[in-house]
Amino acid sequence: MSSNATQYDLITLGETMWRLSPPSHIRLDIAQTLDIQVGGSESNTAIALARLGKRVAWWSRLPKNPLGQHIAQVLRTYGVDVSGIYWQENARLGTYFIEFGSSPRPTQVIYDRANSAASQMEPSDFDWSALKHTRRLHLTGITPALSQSCLETTRRAIAEAKANGVALSFDINYRAKLWSWDQCRPYMDELATQADLAFIALRDARNLLQKPDATACAAASKLYERWSGTSVIVTQGEKGAVTFEGSEHHEVPAYKVQIVDRVGAGDAFSAGVLCGLLDNKPLPEAVQFGTAAAALKMTVPGDIALIAHHEVEALLASDSTEIQR
Amino acid sequence: MSSNATQYDLITLGETMWRLSPPSHIRLDIAQTLDIQVGGSESNTAIALARLGKRVAWWSRLPKNPLGQHIAQVLRTYGVDVSGIYWQENARLGTYFIEFGSSPRPTQVIYDRANSAASQMEPSDFDWSALKHTRRLHLTGITPALSQSCLETTRRAIAEAKANGVALSFDINYRAKLWSWDQCRPYMDELATQADLAFIALRDARNLLQKPDATACAAASKLYERWSGTSVIVTQGEKGAVTFEGSEHHEVPAYKVQIVDRVGAGDAFSAGVLCGLLDNKPLPEAVQFGTAAAALKMTVPGDIALIAHHEVEALLASDSTEIQR
Amino acid sequence: MSSNATQYDLITLGETMWRLSPPSHIRLDIAQTLDIQVGGSESNTAIALARLGKRVAWWSRLPKNPLGQHIAQVLRTYGVDVSGIYWQENARLGTYFIEFGSSPRPTQVIYDRANSAASQMEPSDFDWSALKHTRRLHLTGITPALSQSCLETTRRAIAEAKANGVALSFDINYRAKLWSWDQCRPYMDELATQADLAFIALRDARNLLQKPDATACAAASKLYERWSGTSVIVTQGEKGAVTFEGSEHHEVPAYKVQIVDRVGAGDAFSAGVLCGLLDNKPLPEAVQFGTAAAALKMTVPGDIALIAHHEVEALLASDSTEIQR
Amino acid sequence: MSSNATQYDLITLGETMWRLSPPSHIRLDIAQTLDIQVGGSESNTAIALARLGKRVAWWSRLPKNPLGQHIAQVLRTYGVDVSGIYWQENARLGTYFIEFGSSPRPTQVIYDRANSAASQMEPSDFDWSALKHTRRLHLTGITPALSQSCLETTRRAIAEAKANGVALSFDINYRAKLWSWDQCRPYMDELATQADLAFIALRDARNLLQKPDATACAAASKLYERWSGTSVIVTQGEKGAVTFEGSEHHEVPAYKVQIVDRVGAGDAFSAGVLCGLLDNKPLPEAVQFGTAAAALKMTVPGDIALIAHHEVEALLASDSTEIQR
Amino acid sequence: MSSNATQYDLITLGETMWRLSPPSHIRLDIAQTLDIQVGGSESNTAIALARLGKRVAWWSRLPKNPLGQHIAQVLRTYGVDVSGIYWQENARLGTYFIEFGSSPRPTQVIYDRANSAASQMEPSDFDWSALKHTRRLHLTGITPALSQSCLETTRRAIAEAKANGVALSFDINYRAKLWSWDQCRPYMDELATQADLAFIALRDARNLLQKPDATACAAASKLYERWSGTSVIVTQGEKGAVTFEGSEHHEVPAYKVQIVDRVGAGDAFSAGVLCGLLDNKPLPEAVQFGTAAAALKMTVPGDIALIAHHEVEALLASDSTEIQR
Amino acid sequence: MSSNATQYDLITLGETMWRLSPPSHIRLDIAQTLDIQVGGSESNTAIALARLGKRVAWWSRLPKNPLGQHIAQVLRTYGVDVSGIYWQENARLGTYFIEFGSSPRPTQVIYDRANSAASQMEPSDFDWSALKHTRRLHLTGITPALSQSCLETTRRAIAEAKANGVALSFDINYRAKLWSWDQCRPYMDELATQADLAFIALRDARNLLQKPDATACAAASKLYERWSGTSVIVTQGEKGAVTFEGSEHHEVPAYKVQIVDRVGAGDAFSAGVLCGLLDNKPLPEAVQFGTAAAALKMTVPGDIALIAHHEVEALLASDSTEIQR
Repeated sequence: MSSNATQYDLITLGETMWRLSPPSHIRLDIAQTLDIQVGGSESNTAIALARLGKRVAWWSRLPKNPLGQHIAQVLRTYGVDVSGIYWQENARLGTYFIEFGSSPRPTQVIYDRANSAASQMEPSDFDWSALKHTRRLHLTGITPALSQSCLETTRRAIAEAKANGVALSFDINYRAKLWSWDQCRPYMDELATQADLAFIALRDARNLLQKPDATACAAASKLYERWSGTSVIVTQGEKGAVTFEGSEHHEVPAYKVQIVDRVGAGDAFSAGVLCGLLDNKPLPEAVQFGTAAAALKMTVPGDIALIAHHEVEALLASDSTEIQR
Repeated sequence: MSSNATQYDLITLGETMWRLSPPSHIRLDIAQTLDIQVGGSESNTAIALARLGKRVAWWSRLPKNPLGQHIAQVLRTYGVDVSGIYWQENARLGTYFIEFGSSPRPTQVIYDRANSAASQMEPSDFDWSALKHTRRLHLTGITPALSQSCLETTRRAIAEAKANGVALSFDINYRAKLWSWDQCRPYMDELATQADLAFIALRDARNLLQKPDATACAAASKLYERWSGTSVIVTQGEKGAVTFEGSEHHEVPAYKVQIVDRVGAGDAFSAGVLCGLLDNKPLPEAVQFGTAAAALKMTVPGDIALIAHHEVEALLASDSTEIQR
Repeated sequence: MSSNATQYDLITLGETMWRLSPPSHIRLDIAQTLDIQVGGSESNTAIALARLGKRVAWWSRLPKNPLGQHIAQVLRTYGVDVSGIYWQENARLGTYFIEFGSSPRPTQVIYDRANSAASQMEPSDFDWSALKHTRRLHLTGITPALSQSCLETTRRAIAEAKANGVALSFDINYRAKLWSWDQCRPYMDELATQADLAFIALRDARNLLQKPDATACAAASKLYERWSGTSVIVTQGEKGAVTFEGSEHHEVPAYKVQIVDRVGAGDAFSAGVLCGLLDNKPLPEAVQFGTAAAALKMTVPGDIALIAHHEVEALLASDSTEIQR
Repeated sequence: MSSNATQYDLITLGETMWRLSPPSHIRLDIAQTLDIQVGGSESNTAIALARLGKRVAWWSRLPKNPLGQHIAQVLRTYGVDVSGIYWQENARLGTYFIEFGSSPRPTQVIYDRANSAASQMEPSDFDWSALKHTRRLHLTGITPALSQSCLETTRRAIAEAKANGVALSFDINYRAKLWSWDQCRPYMDELATQADLAFIALRDARNLLQKPDATACAAASKLYERWSGTSVIVTQGEKGAVTFEGSEHHEVPAYKVQIVDRVGAGDAFSAGVLCGLLDNKPLPEAVQFGTAAAALKMTVPGDIALIAHHEVEALLASDSTEIQR
Repeated sequence: MSSNATQYDLITLGETMWRLSPPSHIRLDIAQTLDIQVGGSESNTAIALARLGKRVAWWSRLPKNPLGQHIAQVLRTYGVDVSGIYWQENARLGTYFIEFGSSPRPTQVIYDRANSAASQMEPSDFDWSALKHTRRLHLTGITPALSQSCLETTRRAIAEAKANGVALSFDINYRAKLWSWDQCRPYMDELATQADLAFIALRDARNLLQKPDATACAAASKLYERWSGTSVIVTQGEKGAVTFEGSEHHEVPAYKVQIVDRVGAGDAFSAGVLCGLLDNKPLPEAVQFGTAAAALKMTVPGDIALIAHHEVEALLASDSTEIQR
Repeated sequence: MSSNATQYDLITLGETMWRLSPPSHIRLDIAQTLDIQVGGSESNTAIALARLGKRVAWWSRLPKNPLGQHIAQVLRTYGVDVSGIYWQENARLGTYFIEFGSSPRPTQVIYDRANSAASQMEPSDFDWSALKHTRRLHLTGITPALSQSCLETTRRAIAEAKANGVALSFDINYRAKLWSWDQCRPYMDELATQADLAFIALRDARNLLQKPDATACAAASKLYERWSGTSVIVTQGEKGAVTFEGSEHHEVPAYKVQIVDRVGAGDAFSAGVLCGLLDNKPLPEAVQFGTAAAALKMTVPGDIALIAHHEVEALLASDSTEIQR
């Protein structure tokens, strides 16, 4: 590899936990077994992007024990570079327990993430010079919520990206169990303003803007302005997404899906959009790629988008879903 | 515990069987494994009511072997008092085999309950003095169908309840495989007439009344009259329930549910209604509580309503089913 | 058994493979276990017909090892006569891997059937004199696509059937992975012309006729003429089937089904039709029997129609699907 | 098939039940699933003998429902002829629950076989003319213990065998939960005396003879005399078996086995011996064949001896158990 | 219940965690599922004692969420009184991950118990007046290692027991991951000195005494003296146990066991001894009861001693482990 | 990465198949599910070595479909570099079916590897310049047996290694199902003579040398001489291994192991030896490391040595296998 070639298409960083859930619809209070999934917005995006053929690195702090190794191995399975992980002795892995609901019974999540290794991430954990050979950096609004040192790590990542001319995307990804809108609004603004591209769900956009009735288009315009020219993608679930880059709005509809598992669709969407941008597509076209990736994710069980580039292309090209015998 | 306090909120009695079913939609004639569920209308109601926070005892005859102990342990898990069970040596546990259908293939049930320990229940099996410290007694129309001694036990229970001023609810729960309407009608009338409150499905009400086209309201009125003033709840599945206590009909709609398992919803409904009554709610409000309990039951696999009081309250108060992260 | 009685109601022959699929919606590239199903159009029909009470034999070549024995045992379980199988030493069993899709992700099939024992079937493998005591022969358009010797075996079977006055049904069952329409059209015509009855899906009929917009009725008429008087059943999935025997078209609607597993419905349909014909029903009535059999098949998991004659009759007679307790 | 050829190598009759057991070592009182095995001494022997290549029929009464059909299908899978079964409407299938022990905790069996269809077997259930074309009949001491009509059926079977010159084997197979030695001794003697060959465990031989310290050889001699010349095989588990036909004792050692599942080894032994006799081997050689069959059975999970003739032969010929790669 | 009767035979208190382990011998770093067991020395003893027929209460702090409820329900299943639990809002449940080894690979335990609800237990959590109606209190050396407030809770429990004349047993149960011998020795001495009876493993006795070569008898004597007359049971695993009450040593051999699961045998032993003492047996006889209980525990999978009083008695009375058919 | 640093510690190449086996001891002819393992001697060694901390690449031809991707992903999970794989369109993956035996029933393997992608490997598939930056090459005697082009690929690999001064190890690994000793002897000699180090099982050494009674030491000396100075390791399973490098024999005993799964122990041994050599240990010490690695492998289920460097070191340093709590 020559020294002036790019090493990574994208680097991302954040916390990844064990997601422990009883099988089927069994309730947690009588469960006898738990399924292990590896859950983290940034690592989901990293895996999906690696599956789509991009060179991706994921950074985090993990406990130096089999639980931490489990997470690194899952990422490695799909080709994500995990050589930048900071391994901490005598630390714990964040976990969460999830009991899947069924309308009208809500899904219930019990977090047990306090004092995790990842929440103790520090700016000095990582070799920032890697950004010199990287095309994009992707961050989310979850990391700065974890701890002061995580916030500082996020700030350092942004500073390094800016210094090296690395394109920066930021996914707002508000988590109500970590902080309130009043607490997080200044930080979200601070970070999103520095990004080239921001992802935000319509509900979050309304809360951030304190405009409960804003349409997706209105929200996109307002955020573009508020963040001094950051391109904005407002997502609306089954209603698709809206992009705004300063001139006109593009509305991209979502695919109709026979859903197997909805979890992780947002991260697959981000991965699809970023894949499109890395392929030098214009943003609306990249968002189309993202909606196809999200649709395919929802046909696969688990948080991870086990899909391939050619499958996304095939979906974009055709609407046939018949079996070829 | 002071001697004049109530000991139980409710006592119920009846037969509980092992329900053995192949997993998924596998047919019985090629099954290799069977799932064990504990199935009995009265014990389902008892468990649901205990989960809702009430002090409940369930009485029955069980074989003194691991199969009988299995049933007692399941009840105890959820807090039902099983100290009143009569344990019979050298007896058998009633079982039934169920193969779940899918429209247009009907669900098939093969009962193997003849000569079970429960079918040999006798009035002398139980310590009726417990009713002195109990608020409600709940019986069903299944028990008197099992045997002459079961009928006598039902009669004795009613007599003891009346003697002690214990409120009595009776769930008609007609079982076509045990007796015909012509056989059971006089007994149903005899028992329901003595109850304060009767539960009956619309289809059963029509058969009992021999009025195949009766509406729920009409049936409720007729039964109220036929049973000399017993309050009546006529249930109509997805169409909700109607109550009549002599003056006006109350119609309570059912919740819309993404169904996981429909079995046991009726018993959860009874438990919810009885919980409301024990909380001194008026009947229509108690029935609302019951419809919410039934809705939540249907989101949980298995016969048993693994739900909590605060979940029922939350459903009554809100319609949000989103995940809180 | 007296020597002039019929021995079999029907003989069929063809290739049966192991169908290996990951459970649930797990993707093949990360699967850890595979479910084994026995998959073959002719054996599916044979099993369904045996379950419906007919005496059926299935012929094929199988490797003389536990994998081949597995297939014979599955057929024997349901009463299919497997004494005519040709057992080949040092041969392989055809297999295929299937990953079930979910719209818009298509189901993916990876065949590994080259050089299978069945593809080496030869006319001399079987004791054709058995046809002297057999009422019907059933063949499909899959077998002639497997190899030249399989084509010759198909031709020999037809010749023997004609010589012995055995009624012949032929299921077109086009497989795009084995040959193209241009390749197969002459053979399909050659074989279908000799049959008394042909089954064909509307899509295949349109391709065979090179009339992409033909209706089911038009296709049936055209094929009847093209094949010099072979009775034709054109199937249209959820839209039912059309029959044409030279005078008028009969349209038979499909049942509405809560689908558990769609695979094998076509073979169950054939079995139902053939059962009806063996019971001396007129073709439209036999097709009704077939649509009921196909509907019931779809309520059962797996390729095999684990249904009974009385269940088909009950469905034809009634529309009640309620549980009898 | 010509009319004077034999149709069956062997016919056997008896009760077969569903054996329901929790997986692993899970105790029955907390089990959530049960594994279904088909358990019956005579059907075990029938299946093993069919696997060894003989034409075998098994007769019984079964309930005409999916549970009875399950049992017939399992037998048919392995090639046992089940056309002689008497199907009873509205009957129950005998079942038993088994919880596997581990020394010093004993295995626990809970029978629930009273009033089973099989216990209602009658002499008129079967077409005894089939014995005209049969080489051997095999009976056990379990059947006469089930009911008076079962005893009569056993007597009739013996009478028909004698009348048709069919060789008769009788396996004592004492069941303490069905009757006491004092109850059964006269019947055992009556039936064994008429047999050509009797199988008996050493412990049972001692109890029958009321000689608690008899050696296997002594027991064999005594029984030969007591039963007026019936050949006797006394089995001693890991210590092998002893045969006596009037002149000298032959001791056949058992194989050393890495045990997977011991259940059904006795029935596999009987099948092996009977296979040897059907192959016209002298008794001691047939018993060697039986010990090899029993050894192989113990390497396979479940009651059924899923072994092949060539495997038994290979074991008799060699002692290599290495993998051939 | 009259006010001067005893309410409980025994109360115990301590921390109980979720024990999460991969099935079979699967390693944690590639596990996909985890089995849930409820693990805690004191709750194991409580459950075993309740199964043996005693009235037992278990006290602890648990998080007020489904994970905490899970633990209470498991205890309740077997009849342990859980009404004394202190339920804490917004707390976490201690968990540990266990990967089972196989010689020479050691079993690996990863604790994640810091800041658990139980570690925040305080003396004021419990209603100490219950000890007035209780015969025995059982504590272990784990609880005082969890936190200062847990140490204080242990001290308070002992003081209350002494004040009410409740017999006190103390199981040293040293945990190297919680503290060192130098740290814990004074506390162990302080607490054991106040007990009537102490349980200690030989290895722990040697470390406590700093006499690495002490025999079990010597250790028992030394500890009896060191603790001013506390009766001592020194356990040696497969070599049995030694008791010393001041005069002579009693050595009780262990049973030979075909081991299914060794975990929890020590707690079953304690339960057996305590059951014997509650039945007013002299200590050596109680220890015999304990060794039988421990032996039976090891034939059952899981931490919990799912055994019955009559099984222990049967083992003490006999050595037969044969199946009764 | 600077251009003159080594890139890989070791490269290996060969065929890897899907190993499909029924769970537990279930026989193939009645299996309903298959477990998927990734089986290949060279890939097993590659994974074990990567787990031990070395930089390892594995080369092969794989079909470009999900089955081939499955294999690459498993290797990637554990850190093996798979960038050198040649992906072939429209190819098949070699598979084999394994039914585990139990003495005296042998394990049975059914290969289905003919015409696999790997068997079509050619010298031009790989970028041989990678050997310039690699320390060791590891080959086995399986690859040359697959096809002429595989033999040529092996020869080319050796030539390239020699040209670049890369140390070469060769594992004889004779497969009787692929060729006979008479067929393979010249090739084995040709290849082993060029190696620096050869691994050979004692049984294979005896067959190769045609000296059926040779001791391990004698065989090692003979082979060293026959192969003109190649260092030799003769393995003897539980009896350990012998090394010979020209002067004296070193005998290294095997560890005593409580076996969970014996499969893959030889490959783990090779990996351990190669790890030792890469750490610049003398051969006898490297073999000690290998025996420890093999011992640990046997405590883990599956073909793959899921062990860590520190675990091997701990085993070498200690003999304690107790749980640390």
